[in-house]
Amino acid sequence: MGIFIVLEGIDGAGKSTQAKMLAEWFEKRGYEVVLTKEPTDTAFGKLIRRLVLTGGREGIIDGARISHEAEALLFAADRAEHVDKLIRPSLEAGKVVISDRYFYSSLAYQWARGLDLEWLIDLNRFAIRPDLAVLLDLPVKESMRRINRRSLKSEFDKIVELQRRVRENYLKLVEMFPEMRIVNAQNSIEDIHNDIVGLIEEEILKKT
Amino acid sequence: MGIFIVLEGIDGAGKSTQAKMLAEWFEKRGYEVVLTKEPTDTAFGKLIRRLVLTGGREGIIDGARISHEAEALLFAADRAEHVDKLIRPSLEAGKVVISDRYFYSSLAYQWARGLDLEWLIDLNRFAIRPDLAVLLDLPVKESMRRINRRSLKSEFDKIVELQRRVRENYLKLVEMFPEMRIVNAQNSIEDIHNDIVGLIEEEILKKT
Repeated sequence: MGIFIVLEGIDGAGKSTQAKMLAEWFEKRGYEVVLTKEPTDTAFGKLIRRLVLTGGREGIIDGARISHEAEALLFAADRAEHVDKLIRPSLEAGKVVISDRYFYSSLAYQWARGLDLEWLIDLNRFAIRPDLAVLLDLPVKESMRRINRRSLKSEFDKIVELQRRVRENYLKLVEMFPEMRIVNAQNSIEDIHNDIVGLIEEEILKKT
Repeated sequence: MGIFIVLEGIDGAGKSTQAKMLAEWFEKRGYEVVLTKEPTDTAFGKLIRRLVLTGGREGIIDGARISHEAEALLFAADRAEHVDKLIRPSLEAGKVVISDRYFYSSLAYQWARGLDLEWLIDLNRFAIRPDLAVLLDLPVKESMRRINRRSLKSEFDKIVELQRRVRENYLKLVEMFPEMRIVNAQNSIEDIHNDIVGLIEEEILKKT
């Protein structure tokens, strides 16, 4: 079996940057790496982007936004394909799988939207647990500063409030899932990378 | 609150014919009727038809068929929208909602594909329970005869075996869900209609 690592955190925490650096770190050490993300690039992921992330309304009864339940189920369907077609086969082939977001994102975000956490955990029961899930933790103020640099300006207060709840939820999830570890995402990119590598050496490589 | 009626059964049992006749029966009595079905005609329903029912492979990693888990989640997502955007608002407006298939189909079919029944029930926990769910019960042999007339010929044995398990599952679900009632779908179209109307008069209209 390979090694399965997940990067989590609110927007602007640096997940994709760290995922790339981590992939290179493993590759330099001779591992075969699969760098992936959620939502995926399959038909499901495309539908998620169209219906959820962009607030698109095509094909939905009444032209209204999709319900939180449908959103949670759609993210889980995308994840089921992700596990079945990419994550499980890659791990069985002995590869390192690094995913930018996984089921912890669904729990943190959809719980923040008022759904029942137990239901969300039930939905995602099929999902293989990773060897390590790194929470890149960042104060919301800093997250908003970084996101703003990417020129998102609308609905500022609503976003701040959601991000606050999501960050709190992530910190609660760390108490529930023993594979989760916190890394301070306020540090420099290099320091964060070294913290992640330190966790991997301590928690995974020493044990195998 | 309105009245919510579901028609279930294996392929060829006559669900859509009976749904239409029942809608007319209610309309003649002055009820406002919403005749609907699953999968729906929303973006979710379209994706289900493309990925699941037609065996389409577009956009899926490796070109393989989607996993049973993803299929179950996708059907449930479609259902969540169905409930949120059409069924709940229609019932709140006092209408009669008649649905050709509902969550019992997911339980019967996806359980038959080997998924855990408890998990399937958990997924569908959001779904409003109907006042009456009529199982149009038909021996598989008769179902196959009727389907064949619609010129489906391929994979005969596989389909027979699946339909057999689905029929058994439906009959088990009747024991679990008190709102479910069996109607013999071998009778004439008129007799079946009268049996359904009899159930509605006995189980719903007398009580309201």
